Amino acid sequence: MPAGQAPIVTFLSDFGAGSGYPAQMKGAVLSRLPAAQLVDLSHEVPPFDLLAGALLLEACVPRFPPHAVHCAVVDPGVGTDRRPLCVQDRDGRRLVGPDNGLLTPFLGPGSRCWLLADRLLAPPPESATFHGRDLFAPVAAWLAGGGLPERLGPPVEDPVRLPWPEPVAGPDRLAGEVLAADPFGNLLTSIRACHLPSGPLLVEAGGMHIRTVRTYGEAAPAELVALLGSSGRLELSIREGSAAARLGAGRGFPVVVRLPGGEPFPALPRAC
Amino acid sequence: MPAGQAPIVTFLSDFGAGSGYPAQMKGAVLSRLPAAQLVDLSHEVPPFDLLAGALLLEACVPRFPPHAVHCAVVDPGVGTDRRPLCVQDRDGRRLVGPDNGLLTPFLGPGSRCWLLADRLLAPPPESATFHGRDLFAPVAAWLAGGGLPERLGPPVEDPVRLPWPEPVAGPDRLAGEVLAADPFGNLLTSIRACHLPSGPLLVEAGGMHIRTVRTYGEAAPAELVALLGSSGRLELSIREGSAAARLGAGRGFPVVVRLPGGEPFPALPRAC
Amino acid sequence: MPAGQAPIVTFLSDFGAGSGYPAQMKGAVLSRLPAAQLVDLSHEVPPFDLLAGALLLEACVPRFPPHAVHCAVVDPGVGTDRRPLCVQDRDGRRLVGPDNGLLTPFLGPGSRCWLLADRLLAPPPESATFHGRDLFAPVAAWLAGGGLPERLGPPVEDPVRLPWPEPVAGPDRLAGEVLAADPFGNLLTSIRACHLPSGPLLVEAGGMHIRTVRTYGEAAPAELVALLGSSGRLELSIREGSAAARLGAGRGFPVVVRLPGGEPFPALPRAC
Repeated sequence: MPAGQAPIVTFLSDFGAGSGYPAQMKGAVLSRLPAAQLVDLSHEVPPFDLLAGALLLEACVPRFPPHAVHCAVVDPGVGTDRRPLCVQDRDGRRLVGPDNGLLTPFLGPGSRCWLLADRLLAPPPESATFHGRDLFAPVAAWLAGGGLPERLGPPVEDPVRLPWPEPVAGPDRLAGEVLAADPFGNLLTSIRACHLPSGPLLVEAGGMHIRTVRTYGEAAPAELVALLGSSGRLELSIREGSAAARLGAGRGFPVVVRLPGGEPFPALPRAC
Repeated sequence: MPAGQAPIVTFLSDFGAGSGYPAQMKGAVLSRLPAAQLVDLSHEVPPFDLLAGALLLEACVPRFPPHAVHCAVVDPGVGTDRRPLCVQDRDGRRLVGPDNGLLTPFLGPGSRCWLLADRLLAPPPESATFHGRDLFAPVAAWLAGGGLPERLGPPVEDPVRLPWPEPVAGPDRLAGEVLAADPFGNLLTSIRACHLPSGPLLVEAGGMHIRTVRTYGEAAPAELVALLGSSGRLELSIREGSAAARLGAGRGFPVVVRLPGGEPFPALPRAC
Repeated sequence: MPAGQAPIVTFLSDFGAGSGYPAQMKGAVLSRLPAAQLVDLSHEVPPFDLLAGALLLEACVPRFPPHAVHCAVVDPGVGTDRRPLCVQDRDGRRLVGPDNGLLTPFLGPGSRCWLLADRLLAPPPESATFHGRDLFAPVAAWLAGGGLPERLGPPVEDPVRLPWPEPVAGPDRLAGEVLAADPFGNLLTSIRACHLPSGPLLVEAGGMHIRTVRTYGEAAPAELVALLGSSGRLELSIREGSAAARLGAGRGFPVVVRLPGGEPFPALPRAC
């Protein structure tokens, strides 16, 4: 933490904001670092849904100053031998959580991982069922207060990665899928801005041809449209309506992008 | 912001607290103003419901110190040519949000408005769909850090106002309506304390005569009562029960106030 | 508040996080103490459910630094003659709320209570229906800013206590009950760690024999297990599933613990 900057700790979990569990994690941080600024990313990750949690982290974490520490707990394996982890990505962003794939978006080139092993810094949890409160939050507080990740334990070279949903480029199409719906019913897909050539695109889903627009406001009322959303992903949306309900679509629902006139789809860029 | 006071930024939206969108707005503020105190007003405004958002702002904003800046985003027209706005009311309270009526309660006499036009302060949004994160939150951070609204852009003299639901005084009655239900099922109406003469009142809704009380505790169990609620509005309530469910009532449901003995209802005060 | 420590105020209520009522309480605190760190314990206590609120306070409050002040409002009797209270437990933890049993877990030996009676510190509420905003939050701010509870009003020697659900030890069993379900469907019971002898235990509920484990991870998929949860209470759980749904169980559902071989159950320790 640079001198003079208030430490920031954020929280993501599948606990439910009103369950009392997020509050117990915050108490654990404030007991160690009373000046910490605390921010909830979300506590409404669907229970045990690692991909949903990872996508929320991907969307939220880069918006925070790099000195923030992110405590992420979607943890079906709590109390088993799944490892507890600290990740530092190439931009210096630090996350603490279970080694179960939840932190996948930050495990790219240049990232480093450490086991939470030092018994002084990461004491054996007082309960076997709530590492968020008894392990991850205290470590996040310690890091936010200026602790160095290297001191937490030995490096981990093989952190668990989720199979990450990427679109597949065929001769005449890019084949992707729906990953999640937001509360408005906007559908986020596996197709990102970097996958798409500039120029007009044809989007298909659920047997429908879907017009691409730049913003919700360009859509006609009740029109299903495709656009590059705020997450940098292709989204399917209905202006003031729910694309999820219209298409009856959830995770895995196929979405295809073609080029006008059946032109061949360019190969995906390597560093996308 | 007076010297020595921690800056405060509040947030209101229809995003859903767990969607990740409020967190992205907070990250945008903290990236610019790491010491900001962040407070959620609500992220559970019904989607695109400008009146519900405006009523929550009306109830919450005046409770904060005047140096707080309020970032309000219920924004069906994001990405269209609806204007982005900063409002300062006559008490110096500052709000940032879309010019679509959401800020109506703060557009009374003595208020001033500015377009968010300065490209240095209000850079062109990186995405066309999330002005909350890319425009309103950065401007709120800038204002909370001491920026002057006058620097944001030219004055706006004709901000959009919602048609504001006011009761109508007839010869023998005051005719109002339900505006919203809170999570307890208490029904807020368009009738405010300033509309009502002192002394006993007869309240009617759904064909029922409703007793007026001073507090929930005066009601008998399961009794439907009317009282001046904490928002300064006439509310219909059932002690430890839901008036909304009992009356099957939502926005627009008629509520009438009469005086005992059929006395004529006084004209509404001008400055109510 | 020790010199140099940021004041902390937490909030618990049955208002719903998005209702605007928690935000109004926070505004009331920040108007008096702009530097306060604000933390939500929960605003999703089931309406008027004092035991649920008390259990959440019991689980959360001890996790915070002792200089935190906790503002707790589940208050069906607001506006009646139920007393407003400040409680300080034997560890110096301070809570403010209605004298209706909500604060029971902090009314043990060594605790002290005061009536909120000083009209300068606890002004007559401007509305009769929202003491959370108009009375409890201002007093919490005053305490968090360094005020002494003794100055609030006369001592209260007979604070209202909830009948507290304790298990009953019979000759061959400990008979307890379910108190609450968390969002995962884990069932918290009235049986605490201090009630249980070390060694193997037999747990029964809903006519089923339930295996005891140390952590969720030891359970087979879909197996109903019993374990000592993070709250220090015996919990019934299904790994990645809902014990509440499986057993159709809610508050009051009987849970029995026996010793292997029908050994007599030891008397409950006095100071449990």
